[in-house]
Amino acid sequence: MPCAYTFLGPEGTFTEAALLQVPGAAQAVRLPASNVNAALDKVRDGSADAAMVPIENSVEGGVTATLDAIATGPELRIIREVLVPISFVLAARPGVQLEDVRRVSTHGHAWAQCRLWMDQHILGAEYVPGSSTAAAALGLLDADCRYDAAICAPLVAREHAGLSVLAEDIGDNPGAVTRFILVSRPAPLPERTGADKTTVVVPLPEDRPGALMEILDQFASRGVNLSRIESRPTGQYLGHYFFSIDADGHAREARVADALAGLHRISPGTRFLGSYARADRHATPVPAHTSDAAFAAARTWVESVLAEESAAGESGSGASPKA
Amino acid sequence: MPCAYTFLGPEGTFTEAALLQVPGAAQAVRLPASNVNAALDKVRDGSADAAMVPIENSVEGGVTATLDAIATGPELRIIREVLVPISFVLAARPGVQLEDVRRVSTHGHAWAQCRLWMDQHILGAEYVPGSSTAAAALGLLDADCRYDAAICAPLVAREHAGLSVLAEDIGDNPGAVTRFILVSRPAPLPERTGADKTTVVVPLPEDRPGALMEILDQFASRGVNLSRIESRPTGQYLGHYFFSIDADGHAREARVADALAGLHRISPGTRFLGSYARADRHATPVPAHTSDAAFAAARTWVESVLAEESAAGESGSGASPKA
Amino acid sequence: MPCAYTFLGPEGTFTEAALLQVPGAAQAVRLPASNVNAALDKVRDGSADAAMVPIENSVEGGVTATLDAIATGPELRIIREVLVPISFVLAARPGVQLEDVRRVSTHGHAWAQCRLWMDQHILGAEYVPGSSTAAAALGLLDADCRYDAAICAPLVAREHAGLSVLAEDIGDNPGAVTRFILVSRPAPLPERTGADKTTVVVPLPEDRPGALMEILDQFASRGVNLSRIESRPTGQYLGHYFFSIDADGHAREARVADALAGLHRISPGTRFLGSYARADRHATPVPAHTSDAAFAAARTWVESVLAEESAAGESGSGASPKA
Amino acid sequence: MPCAYTFLGPEGTFTEAALLQVPGAAQAVRLPASNVNAALDKVRDGSADAAMVPIENSVEGGVTATLDAIATGPELRIIREVLVPISFVLAARPGVQLEDVRRVSTHGHAWAQCRLWMDQHILGAEYVPGSSTAAAALGLLDADCRYDAAICAPLVAREHAGLSVLAEDIGDNPGAVTRFILVSRPAPLPERTGADKTTVVVPLPEDRPGALMEILDQFASRGVNLSRIESRPTGQYLGHYFFSIDADGHAREARVADALAGLHRISPGTRFLGSYARADRHATPVPAHTSDAAFAAARTWVESVLAEESAAGESGSGASPKA
Repeated sequence: MPCAYTFLGPEGTFTEAALLQVPGAAQAVRLPASNVNAALDKVRDGSADAAMVPIENSVEGGVTATLDAIATGPELRIIREVLVPISFVLAARPGVQLEDVRRVSTHGHAWAQCRLWMDQHILGAEYVPGSSTAAAALGLLDADCRYDAAICAPLVAREHAGLSVLAEDIGDNPGAVTRFILVSRPAPLPERTGADKTTVVVPLPEDRPGALMEILDQFASRGVNLSRIESRPTGQYLGHYFFSIDADGHAREARVADALAGLHRISPGTRFLGSYARADRHATPVPAHTSDAAFAAARTWVESVLAEESAAGESGSGASPKA
Repeated sequence: MPCAYTFLGPEGTFTEAALLQVPGAAQAVRLPASNVNAALDKVRDGSADAAMVPIENSVEGGVTATLDAIATGPELRIIREVLVPISFVLAARPGVQLEDVRRVSTHGHAWAQCRLWMDQHILGAEYVPGSSTAAAALGLLDADCRYDAAICAPLVAREHAGLSVLAEDIGDNPGAVTRFILVSRPAPLPERTGADKTTVVVPLPEDRPGALMEILDQFASRGVNLSRIESRPTGQYLGHYFFSIDADGHAREARVADALAGLHRISPGTRFLGSYARADRHATPVPAHTSDAAFAAARTWVESVLAEESAAGESGSGASPKA
Repeated sequence: MPCAYTFLGPEGTFTEAALLQVPGAAQAVRLPASNVNAALDKVRDGSADAAMVPIENSVEGGVTATLDAIATGPELRIIREVLVPISFVLAARPGVQLEDVRRVSTHGHAWAQCRLWMDQHILGAEYVPGSSTAAAALGLLDADCRYDAAICAPLVAREHAGLSVLAEDIGDNPGAVTRFILVSRPAPLPERTGADKTTVVVPLPEDRPGALMEILDQFASRGVNLSRIESRPTGQYLGHYFFSIDADGHAREARVADALAGLHRISPGTRFLGSYARADRHATPVPAHTSDAAFAAARTWVESVLAEESAAGESGSGASPKA
Repeated sequence: MPCAYTFLGPEGTFTEAALLQVPGAAQAVRLPASNVNAALDKVRDGSADAAMVPIENSVEGGVTATLDAIATGPELRIIREVLVPISFVLAARPGVQLEDVRRVSTHGHAWAQCRLWMDQHILGAEYVPGSSTAAAALGLLDADCRYDAAICAPLVAREHAGLSVLAEDIGDNPGAVTRFILVSRPAPLPERTGADKTTVVVPLPEDRPGALMEILDQFASRGVNLSRIESRPTGQYLGHYFFSIDADGHAREARVADALAGLHRISPGTRFLGSYARADRHATPVPAHTSDAAFAAARTWVESVLAEESAAGESGSGASPKA
């Protein structure tokens, strides 16, 4: 089954490392994209079947470009999530010593995650913004490079003979992890695994105070836990938000489907972004009164109440009071 | 259409006055019953088609005999409600003067509603319990009656030549009203009128603190107002309750049906007692996001999400990423 | 310490049995009152120091006369609760056999609690309303008594030589229990015991839908469980209620005091009826974040925030930006 | 009153424009800082009295560097907010035409806000990351500048003779606005104005599902509206959050103070960041039952209940029942 992937490039970033975790991706076409919007556009226009993009980092938080890009435009679906531990190295050209380093380039998020190490090891380090960690590293190979070192993923530093590693594991949070999502055009939902997530985008209704609590209550009242919630501006005016939410469970579970219906009622612009297996495989506990069986029993009961024929009729009397 | 009614008797009570408000009841068979259980049993065994019984009084509160009797045993349905203003008279045998009255009989509820008047007009009045207001009045006609006067409905005092009225409108609350319900065996639901009530009985789940709030939230989160809520003991132990609830709306409205399903999930012993027109004809306002249209749109949306076919498939590529 | 008690009489009722459980009551003056209002009035006017009255029965539910009487008029305080197992006997005059019994008198609540036994053992039993179980029993001693037997407490049947017991334990619910309260004029609160109850009366605010949930939330949001909630009509019109509520905990606990303040804000007519030891001595578990310590820490923190002096000032600069 | 300000530099950014709106700032010392942390550190170490930093943009959302920097480290206070309409120009060296522009530098946020304009007006525009809009503009003056144009604030383009403006108002959202905060060391709270905001940081308690709803309920149950809520990772692990919240009202208002106490109980790590006048001067409506008067009345009532002396004592009897 031929398949083409795109990802937030360039090659050698953590995003490509995430993509390589997808079965078959190593053998498939992999097209780097220069930014998240470009990656998603390749999927939307059919030039790729799926895109791997980062959505959240345990230190830096949500990746706003991704949150915004999947919340608008033609609909897309998240079909898989991948977690990648984030480990940074300081790379330079061979021969450069740590004490020579003054100007350092990398992506802004990476810079933020290595700030303490920098403060401690490089006196007066100066930050040169880079468009990605890989681009910063590869820039060192340019003849007229204006900086001395780059913060990048171990992968890219190792793969290029022209680079040497001055220091490893320089991230301030040793357990840092980034979560990536694989995004496709709308497609049949992945199977339920018992350990799933559902992602939705819910615009905050403007006309009702307390609307955020109403939104959360759609999940809470059905025993559905949230693992992520982020507010993003709609861009219309300060204080006008949508919420990007990950909920435990799969849309084919009755309690999740019921919560989705509730969200749609409250906020008709609610967008479904997919149900997919959790990367950590933690099974979701389901209280008995929110199980599929409880929902089915409730529906059957209500239908029986509504469909009710006269017991008098059944018993043959035929006489029911006209009230 | 032949039809037999029963009611909480004897004849001449407020309950018969309520029954006479039902179209056709004046021409139908009307069987008095000695207590609420007896009346409902006549319906259950088919010897009557419907029973008129009191359920709540604006001064005395819920009629516990009725609340308990319809909450257990074979299922019944409320198909109509009737409001009757409650006005009491003091009746005696002809010739008896107000200053002669010392011992007064009536039903306990009636006594409670005339207590202030009694305190002001009959010094040292002694209460003689009666099984109903009508029974107390008719008892005056007995030769060996042990009391001097009875508190009863104007109707019964007027209809018996052997009784004279010593005082009218002796109730302490001039606006007192009693609400009666017409109860049948399970039958097709009365039509929606836009001004309906739905009555349910909800046992309080034992195993979860906060269950009462969960129950109320099933209504609140769907914009359904409650007009009555009463707790009744199940009889098992102190603190074990069920709740008898009147909600605005009809079970054929999506928001009410959805609330019923929620109640059944939380408390599977929930009993549906009927949807019927409000006696006061006050239409129920329905916020847009809880309208039938909003529920239908939400359901359609969720179904479209779940039924989703691959857009890739639709566009002929056939290649969707295997994730 | 001289003390006079009153109770819902006559002598020999379950209420007197409850009063006799109060330390010292057996030696004190005990004045029977003919009804709950009369008993409470004796306390209010100072002719008694405290009154014992029933408030709820595990089978019959709330005692509405008591719920209403303590909710209005000059303020009173509940200072103790007493639980009495309810066991009924069928009493008659010596020589009467069970098969002779046709007409039976007792209080309406007692009749309701023995109905099944009556249906099974006395064919076509006829109910004669009595003003109390004890009055019904003592009525048998009258020469012209019009009924054959009485349902009453074992106590009264045993104490009168003129009565014999035809059957014991005839109540339909063997575990039936009635809860009584000892009521005084406003007095210093009983000490905290760690297993306390607080009783309040909360009128439902008229102007806000969802007010009942707001009321319940005052308790829930502070981790305070409710053991009883009853709605009672205010008498003004159908659907106008107050709620009588028992909450776990003592008003001297910060979380309970805070909940009381919340109730008063929402419904300024809220009435405090007392904090007192639970009869069953079940200690109330208190989650850490609702402990007195947590409330005290929160208050201290807020005060420190509000009282804040300029850190600039403390460090001697004296220059804080004028904004 | 001598005062030194710092701000997120360099000079000519929107942040300096915000600072200049502060009365007196134009005449005061203004020290640019290279990043948000550096600006706040100048305040913390006393080398500046206050720092102006951006906190949120109507298009790009929260400024995560600021949200994180004020949530940790020695405590700071927000003492003022400033709103600045964001308008971008495209600047180049004199003589450069729009059709010559290929490589464009600016800050990432500014790039994101002008993307549509770029797509429409500059075919194949290439983005060169800059550390700020002003730095990108000034970089054009360097002899070896590697890009052709910069997106920057009108201010900086106008002030430098070496720059010409190729296009104005190139932002995709004409109404874009950025909100800045003036931050000082802990200081006496600014006066209540009736149109205030309070900012807090609330770590999500880990041990309780539904904790976010509990947090929101602290505001909702006291009628306090939120104008901003953002989740930020604590950095410890994916899914561990704190919330940065702006609430309507001043900490000296009883309902806000009470909500703060509630937050502290639920999440003792709650951090108060200040109460200050709203830049838009919109007065906050306060429902009667959440007014200062309602809180004071409730407190007085609870204290009276707790302090209660025996009414018996007052009436001189001295005999209260020992229960």
